[in-house]
Amino acid sequence: MDYTAAPLEKLIEEFGKFQGVGRKGATRMAYQVLSMSDKDATALADAIRGAHTRLHRCRICQNYTDADLCPVCASAKRDTSVICVVEKPRDVQAFERTREYNGLYHVLHGLLDPLAGVGAEQLTVKELLARLKDDTVKEVIMAMNPTVEGEATAMYLAKLIKPLGIRVTRLASGLPVGASLEYADETTLYRALSGRGEL
Amino acid sequence: MDYTAAPLEKLIEEFGKFQGVGRKGATRMAYQVLSMSDKDATALADAIRGAHTRLHRCRICQNYTDADLCPVCASAKRDTSVICVVEKPRDVQAFERTREYNGLYHVLHGLLDPLAGVGAEQLTVKELLARLKDDTVKEVIMAMNPTVEGEATAMYLAKLIKPLGIRVTRLASGLPVGASLEYADETTLYRALSGRGEL
Repeated sequence: MDYTAAPLEKLIEEFGKFQGVGRKGATRMAYQVLSMSDKDATALADAIRGAHTRLHRCRICQNYTDADLCPVCASAKRDTSVICVVEKPRDVQAFERTREYNGLYHVLHGLLDPLAGVGAEQLTVKELLARLKDDTVKEVIMAMNPTVEGEATAMYLAKLIKPLGIRVTRLASGLPVGASLEYADETTLYRALSGRGEL
Repeated sequence: MDYTAAPLEKLIEEFGKFQGVGRKGATRMAYQVLSMSDKDATALADAIRGAHTRLHRCRICQNYTDADLCPVCASAKRDTSVICVVEKPRDVQAFERTREYNGLYHVLHGLLDPLAGVGAEQLTVKELLARLKDDTVKEVIMAMNPTVEGEATAMYLAKLIKPLGIRVTRLASGLPVGASLEYADETTLYRALSGRGEL
């Protein structure tokens, strides 16, 4: 006899959709939801709806924000002559934690991956090029993970941007190849940033 | 500058409340919610609310169900003379998977843990005793985990139930199938030895 009631089964299935959450983990989470107070369960559900409805992409850098512009793009203190191009929003947080970078960002929301059918049009390449139209930007830093897709994406963007007479650099490979920006400690990331070289 | 927008921070905090989900895991899940389609995010939120509002404890065995009675208690095929007492709903699923047990269950929703302030009144002991009032139940199987709290809870319940002239048994404890003698702890080995049976 299958013992799981339908609403519970549904919840387990939903939690199971998260990367790195298996059937066992999803089941544990589902039962924890049941043992929550009604208030807490509502808070959780509302947080999900709230984050999804209230957060959208920053008009300029494409990072998530609940305002029209994200704090970085809205700030008057940032150096608008440098744009650091990253794969995902979490990478921006990683750079902000170093407190060493004062330029702007551009979030691609992915990397070129032809095999997975991810081309330039799936990424925010169009928005990036639009930001380079006027002459304010002097340098674009390629800050993708040092992986095959990361390097390929950097090369591709460099080909598009260099002709505009803008300096294109990339992070020094102080990061071990195959590592993920998200987990790099501040110092490593700062060294990689300051040691960036011509592409 | 803290880069996380308020609704995102709130979501990370909510996910972080799950056991075994750390800050990094919660952050990853939160960003995954953001990258979901609006439809999927709503489905997730609704599943949480739905499970919490539509599931309640079975009137008899205290397991979660969306009906008045859970499938086991509602079934006419089950042997009503035996009750298997377990700590949590997941344990019921474990027994059902064996397809060998045909009796009823009773879910305590916890174990006695005086240090954590969990006494009999926090568990469903009252409901269990109520089920033993008439003479239908002939045996109660203590199926808590063989841990300190599990054993203590089993002893406590046995003291209450035996006087009612009902047989109280507990799961055999010994070497798990496929285990190797050399890695078995002393207690397990002692119990396997003392509980040995004819071949």
